[in-house]
Amino acid sequence: MQKSVVLYSGGLDSTTLLWSLRPDVKALLVDYGQRHRTELDHARDICDAFGIEYEIADLRGINHLIQKGSQSGTEQVPDGHYAELSMKTTIVPNRNMIMLSVAVGWAIATGSKAVFYAAHGGDHAIYPDCRPQFVKAFAEAVELGNGWDDITVKAPFVNNTKAQIVKLGSMLGAPLELTWSCYKGGDLHCGTCGTCVERKEAFQLAGVPDPTAYKGVEEIR
Amino acid sequence: MQKSVVLYSGGLDSTTLLWSLRPDVKALLVDYGQRHRTELDHARDICDAFGIEYEIADLRGINHLIQKGSQSGTEQVPDGHYAELSMKTTIVPNRNMIMLSVAVGWAIATGSKAVFYAAHGGDHAIYPDCRPQFVKAFAEAVELGNGWDDITVKAPFVNNTKAQIVKLGSMLGAPLELTWSCYKGGDLHCGTCGTCVERKEAFQLAGVPDPTAYKGVEEIR
Repeated sequence: MQKSVVLYSGGLDSTTLLWSLRPDVKALLVDYGQRHRTELDHARDICDAFGIEYEIADLRGINHLIQKGSQSGTEQVPDGHYAELSMKTTIVPNRNMIMLSVAVGWAIATGSKAVFYAAHGGDHAIYPDCRPQFVKAFAEAVELGNGWDDITVKAPFVNNTKAQIVKLGSMLGAPLELTWSCYKGGDLHCGTCGTCVERKEAFQLAGVPDPTAYKGVEEIR
Repeated sequence: MQKSVVLYSGGLDSTTLLWSLRPDVKALLVDYGQRHRTELDHARDICDAFGIEYEIADLRGINHLIQKGSQSGTEQVPDGHYAELSMKTTIVPNRNMIMLSVAVGWAIATGSKAVFYAAHGGDHAIYPDCRPQFVKAFAEAVELGNGWDDITVKAPFVNNTKAQIVKLGSMLGAPLELTWSCYKGGDLHCGTCGTCVERKEAFQLAGVPDPTAYKGVEEIR
């Protein structure tokens, strides 16, 4: 069977997505000069450890063009809850569409029929490109723009919470302990940035023991 | 007034588009490791000569992922009329969507409100991503995916023929003699590849003297 493509960040959501599609799946990792490059290393390590085929899209050549928010620019990473408006500074202009477009190109070039995107319900408030309306419009553009090829885009978690995804990942035996969420990079999850707060909350709500070593917790010990 | 962004190849269509929007316009050039790199030089030369602000998106880091057709891969560039099916080999998977997505990212990061795309009617038969339906779906995805920003995508030539574009370009005083169409690269237009055939035809139908030095014609002299 032809493998599907997952746009893969090495985080909780896309790792669970990858596991839900194994073994007929391959991963596209993206290097866009992100501050949290640790993410990329974790994604690669997971693929290597489990024999998952992957490629890295090197988009550092356009990084200077889309520097605006805190992820690729110079603004500070905000602490606090993910759903707050301050998290808007984590938006890199049109980043997800750029990465998805590359994933679609790679999928078509290698005969894949589908690109999977791990957008989820918890992201809707802040990230318009994680909403079902965007996924629908984007998938339509992809299908219309590549009429000679049989290709589609799917976001199966688009109406799920992160807690539901953690539950599913745990059920599927995905290596959640190897995933990376923190926007600040470093050796350990900071435990205070928006994605760390969201990560902790998701394990708690899912009733799944959190395997993450958080920096603050380490320091207190 | 805030400048609009034109996705700029240095060809007839996007040069005319650029001229129709001057002076409130800036250009995004794309280096994707194309065989016809002459195109990129011409685009840059035109911008430099007329003081048009531009940036180059370096997408060579993803070239290995989308190698399929003759433009970035190893297949031979076909001769013949552009509208023939053999020209399908000139398709690089999802290339235009990738470039447009980057243009949208740059536009948002720099406060532009619109990205202009020089897709035209003559491309419809072969290139699905030059059709009005694609432009509409893509523009919708861009607007939905970037809800915090005021951004749109326009393709004003999408129902025009190349001959009409040449006529307009000539009327606007666009430097059509400096533009580049040939897919084969080199110093002179080959005169026989699909885009050269289309270029010749467009000038002829427009009733505009063709300023292009074609290789075959040179050799005969």
